Amino acid sequence: MAILLDETHDAKRTSWVAGANQHADFPVQNLPLGVFSVRGDTPRGGIAIGDAVFDIKAACEAKLFSGDADKAARAAGASTLNDLMVLGAGPRAALRKQVSALLAEGTPESARAMPLAAKLLHKAADCTLHLPAKIGAFTDFFAGITHAENGGKRRGANPPLTPNYKYVPVAYHSRASTVRPSGVSVRRPNGQRVVDGEQLPTFGPCLKMDFELELGIWIGHGNTWGDPIPMSRASEHIYGYCMLNDWSARDIQRWESQPLGPFLSKNFGTTISPWIITPEALAPFQIAQPPRPDGDPKPLPYLWDDNDQREGQFDLDIEVLIHTEGMRAKGAPPQRISASNTRHLYWTVAQMVAHHTCGGCSLEAGDIFGSGTISGPTPENYGSIAELSFDGTRDITLASGEIRRWVQDGDDIYLRAHGRRDGYSIGFGDCCARMMAGGR
Amino acid sequence: MAILLDETHDAKRTSWVAGANQHADFPVQNLPLGVFSVRGDTPRGGIAIGDAVFDIKAACEAKLFSGDADKAARAAGASTLNDLMVLGAGPRAALRKQVSALLAEGTPESARAMPLAAKLLHKAADCTLHLPAKIGAFTDFFAGITHAENGGKRRGANPPLTPNYKYVPVAYHSRASTVRPSGVSVRRPNGQRVVDGEQLPTFGPCLKMDFELELGIWIGHGNTWGDPIPMSRASEHIYGYCMLNDWSARDIQRWESQPLGPFLSKNFGTTISPWIITPEALAPFQIAQPPRPDGDPKPLPYLWDDNDQREGQFDLDIEVLIHTEGMRAKGAPPQRISASNTRHLYWTVAQMVAHHTCGGCSLEAGDIFGSGTISGPTPENYGSIAELSFDGTRDITLASGEIRRWVQDGDDIYLRAHGRRDGYSIGFGDCCARMMAGGR
Repeated sequence: MAILLDETHDAKRTSWVAGANQHADFPVQNLPLGVFSVRGDTPRGGIAIGDAVFDIKAACEAKLFSGDADKAARAAGASTLNDLMVLGAGPRAALRKQVSALLAEGTPESARAMPLAAKLLHKAADCTLHLPAKIGAFTDFFAGITHAENGGKRRGANPPLTPNYKYVPVAYHSRASTVRPSGVSVRRPNGQRVVDGEQLPTFGPCLKMDFELELGIWIGHGNTWGDPIPMSRASEHIYGYCMLNDWSARDIQRWESQPLGPFLSKNFGTTISPWIITPEALAPFQIAQPPRPDGDPKPLPYLWDDNDQREGQFDLDIEVLIHTEGMRAKGAPPQRISASNTRHLYWTVAQMVAHHTCGGCSLEAGDIFGSGTISGPTPENYGSIAELSFDGTRDITLASGEIRRWVQDGDDIYLRAHGRRDGYSIGFGDCCARMMAGGR
Repeated sequence: MAILLDETHDAKRTSWVAGANQHADFPVQNLPLGVFSVRGDTPRGGIAIGDAVFDIKAACEAKLFSGDADKAARAAGASTLNDLMVLGAGPRAALRKQVSALLAEGTPESARAMPLAAKLLHKAADCTLHLPAKIGAFTDFFAGITHAENGGKRRGANPPLTPNYKYVPVAYHSRASTVRPSGVSVRRPNGQRVVDGEQLPTFGPCLKMDFELELGIWIGHGNTWGDPIPMSRASEHIYGYCMLNDWSARDIQRWESQPLGPFLSKNFGTTISPWIITPEALAPFQIAQPPRPDGDPKPLPYLWDDNDQREGQFDLDIEVLIHTEGMRAKGAPPQRISASNTRHLYWTVAQMVAHHTCGGCSLEAGDIFGSGTISGPTPENYGSIAELSFDGTRDITLASGEIRRWVQDGDDIYLRAHGRRDGYSIGFGDCCARMMAGGR
C-alpha cells in the first residue's frame, strides 16, 4: 500500500527544462497531470514542469514511452483523462517515472527528449488549462473539525458538533455540472434569503458570499454497484489531488438547508485547481493520522486500517489569498488571509472512500470529493471568511486598508497548497477565481 | 405554453396493434419513449404500444418519418435518448404525432406501417427496458407537504414543517450513478445507525428500509451556467415523466443527516420506471395548482407564473403495491398499500426547474428530478412505509396475513401511475424492484 520513494523523489534530481529547478510548484519531483490546449487547439493531456507544459501526446507520437507508460500516454492523449484514470495506479506511476527520466538532467532518456524540446514543451503562459476529467459526481465531505465546530457555534448549537460527527464522515452530494477550473470567474447567485433585520425571505443577490479551503480528491477506477470499497483498498481508488474552493452563499444556505442540507447555496459554482497531483508526488508528505483526543471514539472497524492510521494523512501547507480590485489597481500582490494544513482533517481520504461506498454506492473515474473546509485550531488558520469574520461581525482589515467581512464583487480568491521538504517543494498550482456581480 | 389537444388525444382513436386498445397503460393515446433491447442486441429507442414495443430505428430505416419526426427518430436510434432530448419539444411532439398516425386504424399512414409490423413491433415480454438516458445528475425535491409534515412529526419537530417550507421548494442533490430501471433488484445497504434500544452507533444492515412514491421529472435541453430558467420557459425544459422510488434507509438517515442532509441513506439505489411519459400524452391531465390554504404565503415572483398556476399541476392517480415472497408463493397478486394523487404536490414541476436554476446552476439533458414523496392528506394516501406504519410503531396487516412495519428482504415494491379520462387511461408502466438481502 505504501508508495516507495525512488529516484523521482530524490531532491538532487534536476531537470534540463529551464526554470524547473527550485520551482515552487512544479519541479521535476512533482509532475502533475492535467488537460491543456494552446491557442484554441484540441485539448489533451499534459504534465506541468516549471513554467512549461509537457505534451504527453507529442511525446507518445515520438515513441518516447514503453510498456505501461506508453499505455498510459495513449489514454492521456484524449481531451479528458477519464480513460487514463480507469487504468489505475500502475500505469500512472510508470508514466510519471518515465517522464521524470525524460525531463531529468543526465539520464539516458533525457538525451532522447532534449532534441525534441520544441515539440514536447509549451510555455505555460500560452496554455489554457481545462478540467482534467469529465466529472460525473461531486461529493463534499465535512472533515475539517474546527470548521464544523465553528459552523455549529454560528448556528447557536451547544455543543457545536452534532452527536454523529466523530463517528460518521459526514458528507452531502453536491453539483458536478458547475465545477470549473481555476481562471473561470464565478457569478454571484441570486436566491432566497432573509436579509439581516428583516423577518421574511426575499429574492435577490447573495449578500454573504464565502469561499472554502478544501482538498480535492479525484477518484480513479470505481467500484461495482453493491460492492463496497474496503479500507485496505481505498487508497488504490484515489487518482490524485487538487485544491477545491466550495464557494458558499451563506445567507441562502441558512434559509434553505433545513431539513435536507445545502443545495443552491453550493451549486452555483465550485472552483478547482487544474492539475491532478499524483499520490506518487505526495508520498514524501504522508504522515500518520494525528491521534484522536482522549474521549473521542475510535473509528468503527469499517473505517479502521492500521496502514491508513500510520500514513494516510498529509502534511501540506494550504492557504487562502485575496486580491481585490483595489490591490490590482495599485499593482499590489495578493494577500494571504489564512494559513492552514491538511493534517487538521479529522478523517483521512481513504476513510472518505470507504464510507462513501459502504452501502454499495458506486464511484466512477472522474468523480471528485471535497474534504470539507480545512480550518486549523486558531483564527489565523480558519478556512472560510465566515469563520475569519466571525459570521460577518468582525472586520478583516487588509494591508491595502480595505475591509472585508464577506467576498465582494471583483475579489479574486486564491487557494494554494505546498508540500515542503529538504531540497524542494511541490505545489498544486493556483485555484483561483474572481467573484463577479450577478447579472440578471 | 399550453399543449393543444389534437387527434393524438382523441379517445375514439384506435390502433391496429393487437392488445393496444383499452390497454390500461399503453393505448395509442400514450406513446411513451424508452430504450429497449431484444435478446441482448444493441439497445435503441422504442415506444410502448399495448403489449408491444415499437422500434423507432427500424421505422426510421423504413423511411416512415418525415421532417422533424425523422430528425427525432434518427436521434432516438442511439442507446440512450440524450441526443433526442436536447432537440426539445418540437421534434418530440412531431415524432409522437407521426407514430400515432402510423399505429392508428384507418389513417393513410397505417397502410404503410401495417405490412412492416413484424419489423416494427416486438413483444414487450421479449424486451429488456434500460435506463432511457444517461443520467448526469439526480436532484430530489421535497414537494409532498404531508410527507414533509409527517417527517417533522417523526423528528419531534413542533411545528412539523420548517419555517422555509412554504417559501422554498426544498431539495437536495442525490446520486445519479445508482439509479436503475424497474426490474433491477436493490441490495439492502449496510451502514452506521443507532439500533433501537441502544445508545451508540454500530455498523450493520439497514433495519428500517423504506420506499418513496415520487413523480420523476426528466430534463431535456438544459441552460447555460449562470443563466437561470425563468418560470415562463421552465416547462419547455421538461422532457417527460416517470415514477421514481427513492429507496430510503431510515435508520441510517436519522443518524447521518445532521447537519448536511441525507447521503448514504439514499445513494445505495433508486428505481425508476423506464418509459418517458411525454408532456403531450399528459396534456389532458393538466389541472390548476390547487389554491394555497389561507395564511400560506404566495410564492415569490420568481416562482410565480399565471399559466403555471392555471395548468401546471397534474391529476394522476398514483399507488404503491407490495408483493411479498409469501404472496408470490401462493400465486396471490400484489396488494395495494397506498393510493395517492400528484395533485397533492405543494410545488409544480415548473417551479422545481425555475428554483433549481435561479442561482445559475446548469441543468443538462438526462438530468432527473424526484418530486418528493407524494403523500395525500390521510393515511391511505401515505407514500412511504415510515408514514404508513407511523415510524414502525403500527403493523400493516396484509391480506396474506403477513405483517409489515418496514420493507423486508424479498419484497417487491411497485409504484404505478395512471391518468384516467372518458374513453381511455394511460399509465406509466411498472416501477418495480425487489429488496434483496445485503451480501457482504
